[in-house]
Amino acid sequence: MRILTGIQSSGRPHLGNILGAIKPAVDLSLQPGNDSFLFIADLHSLTSLRDGTTRREYVRAIAATWLAFGLDTNRSTFWRQSRVQEHTELYWYLNCFTPKPMLENATSFKDKSEKGLEANAGLFTYPVLQAADILLYDAEVIPVGKDQRQHIEMTRDIAGTLNRAVGEAILVLPEPRIDERLMVIPGIDGQKMSKSYNNYIDIFLPENELWKVVKKIKSDSTPLEEPKNPDTDITFQLFSLLGSDEQIQEQRSLYEAGGYGYGQAKKALYELIIQKYATERERFNYYMHENPDALETELQAGEEKARAVARQTIRRVREKLGFS
Amino acid sequence: MRILTGIQSSGRPHLGNILGAIKPAVDLSLQPGNDSFLFIADLHSLTSLRDGTTRREYVRAIAATWLAFGLDTNRSTFWRQSRVQEHTELYWYLNCFTPKPMLENATSFKDKSEKGLEANAGLFTYPVLQAADILLYDAEVIPVGKDQRQHIEMTRDIAGTLNRAVGEAILVLPEPRIDERLMVIPGIDGQKMSKSYNNYIDIFLPENELWKVVKKIKSDSTPLEEPKNPDTDITFQLFSLLGSDEQIQEQRSLYEAGGYGYGQAKKALYELIIQKYATERERFNYYMHENPDALETELQAGEEKARAVARQTIRRVREKLGFS
Repeated sequence: MRILTGIQSSGRPHLGNILGAIKPAVDLSLQPGNDSFLFIADLHSLTSLRDGTTRREYVRAIAATWLAFGLDTNRSTFWRQSRVQEHTELYWYLNCFTPKPMLENATSFKDKSEKGLEANAGLFTYPVLQAADILLYDAEVIPVGKDQRQHIEMTRDIAGTLNRAVGEAILVLPEPRIDERLMVIPGIDGQKMSKSYNNYIDIFLPENELWKVVKKIKSDSTPLEEPKNPDTDITFQLFSLLGSDEQIQEQRSLYEAGGYGYGQAKKALYELIIQKYATERERFNYYMHENPDALETELQAGEEKARAVARQTIRRVREKLGFS
Repeated sequence: MRILTGIQSSGRPHLGNILGAIKPAVDLSLQPGNDSFLFIADLHSLTSLRDGTTRREYVRAIAATWLAFGLDTNRSTFWRQSRVQEHTELYWYLNCFTPKPMLENATSFKDKSEKGLEANAGLFTYPVLQAADILLYDAEVIPVGKDQRQHIEMTRDIAGTLNRAVGEAILVLPEPRIDERLMVIPGIDGQKMSKSYNNYIDIFLPENELWKVVKKIKSDSTPLEEPKNPDTDITFQLFSLLGSDEQIQEQRSLYEAGGYGYGQAKKALYELIIQKYATERERFNYYMHENPDALETELQAGEEKARAVARQTIRRVREKLGFS
C-alpha cells in the first residue's frame, strides 16, 4: 500500500510533532507491505515564510529529526519537495482543472485569511499544489487529521476531472485515512503544544537549556508536603506519554503520597526525556552538526528515488494533454 | 536589448497573426543589437484548450509558421514553454508574492470569465505564469498591445515585491513597449480577422482550398461593368496589405475603371498570396509534412538555449528563498 505524508516545514519539530506525527508515521512506514512516501513540504512553507536562511535551517532540522527517529530511507522514499520540479509542473496542469470557486470554499484558506495571513495566490492555490504532491506518486492512502479531509476530497475531485477530460484514469484517486484518536500533546502551559503558542519542548536542546524549559511547566500551588493529583498536572501528563507503565505507576505513587514537589517531578520528566531520547539526540546531533554531508546525501538519494516515480506520472499527463 | 515575446498557441496562425504579430516580431529579432526570446506559450493554452492532439498540432503549425517566416534560430531563442520546467517552478514562487486581490482586478480575467470561459485556477493565476515567463529570462522589453499593459505592470509589481523581500534585485523589471499602430487586418467578412469569428485566411492551405476561402470574401452588389470604390472593398484592403505599390496602384485603376468584377479582384488577391508566400508555403510544408524531425530538432535546440538562461535565474531565486 502506497502511503504519502507531507511534512510541514514551517518550524523545527518539537515533542508534540514527534509524538503526534513523526513517530506514528515512522511506525507505519516500517509495517510490512507499506511503501511510504514522505516529503518535506518546503514549497508550501513559502506561502507564509519568506526568509531563506530560516527555511533552510528548518528543513535540515526536520530531516535530521525524521532520520533520528528511525526513518529507514532504504524502505521509504524521503525527499524535499522543492527538489523535484514535477511538483510545480503538475500543479500548473491541475490548476487548469480546478474551478476557482472550489478554492474559495476551502476552509483552510478562509481560516488563514481570517487570521490575517496575507492572502497571496500561493496560499489560495495551495490545495492544488497539495493535490499535485499526492497525485504525482500514485498515492493510495493519505493519513490526515480531520481538518485535512476536505483537501483530500479536492484532490479526488481535481484528479477525477482531469481523468474524465483525457478519457483515461491516468491519475490514482487517493483515500484519506482519518486518524480519529487525534493525540493532543499538552504544552508547558497546558494548552495544545504548538509553535505558535510558544509552549513547546524541543527535545534536541542542550541539557541545560532543556532543563530550563521543563522547569517552566505550569503547576498549581499545592505545598510540597501535601499529596498531589497527578491527573490534573501537566508534568505528569507529559511523563505519562513518555514513560513505561512501571515508571508511570511509580510516579503516580510519589504524587499521591505527598512530600514530593513539582520541582522533583519536573526533574524526573527531564531525566526521562534525556534517557528515553538518548539515541535520537545523538543521531540528530550527528546529522545537524557533526556530519551535515551525511544528511545531504540521504536527502539527495531520496530525491533521485522520488524523481523516478514522479517522472513516470508526469509523462502520462504530458502525453495525454499534448505536452510531449 | 533582450526582447521577449510569448506566442499564443490556441490556434493555427492565419494571415492576421502573420501580418500583425509574426512578421513584425521576426523583423525586430533580425535588427542588430536585439537578442530575441520567443516562446510558444503552450502551457497557457491549457487554461482553455484541453485536447492534447489539437494542442500538439497547433504547436507544430505555429513553430513551422515562424520558421517559414524567417525566424533565425541561431540569432534568436525559440522554444516551447512546456519543455522548460523552470517556468512552472518560478510560477509557484511568484504566486507566493502575488496578492490575490491583484489577480481579482486583472481585466483579462474579468473579461474572460464574463464571456463565460470557465473560471479555473489556471486562468485566474495566468498573469503570474506570464510574469514567470518574462522574469525567467531577464527580459528588458516586452512588445505588447494596449490590452496587455496591465500584465506587464503586474509582472513589475510581483518582481519588485520579491526583490524587496530578499533584499536584492535578483529579478529584472521589464519595460512594456506598447505598439500604438495596432494593425487591424480585416477578415473575409470585414470584421477583425480572428479565429473566433471564423473569418480568417489560412495562407498555408492547399491551392484549391485557399481559393475557396478567398472567393468567400464579402463584397457589395455593384454590377460588373460599373466603376467600384476600392477603399470600401475588403478584397482590396487585403490586397493593399500584401501588394507592392505598383500592384496596388494597378489594382486601384482596374476597380475605378469599371468592367472589373469582384470575382476577378479575388482571383488577383488569391494569386498575389500564392506568389508572395511561395517560399513560406514551401518551408511550412517542409517542416509540417515533409520533414517533421527537422522541426523537432530546431525546437529542441531552442529549448537547450532557453533552459541554460532559465537555470541561472532560478538558481538566484532558489538561493535567496532557501531552496538550494
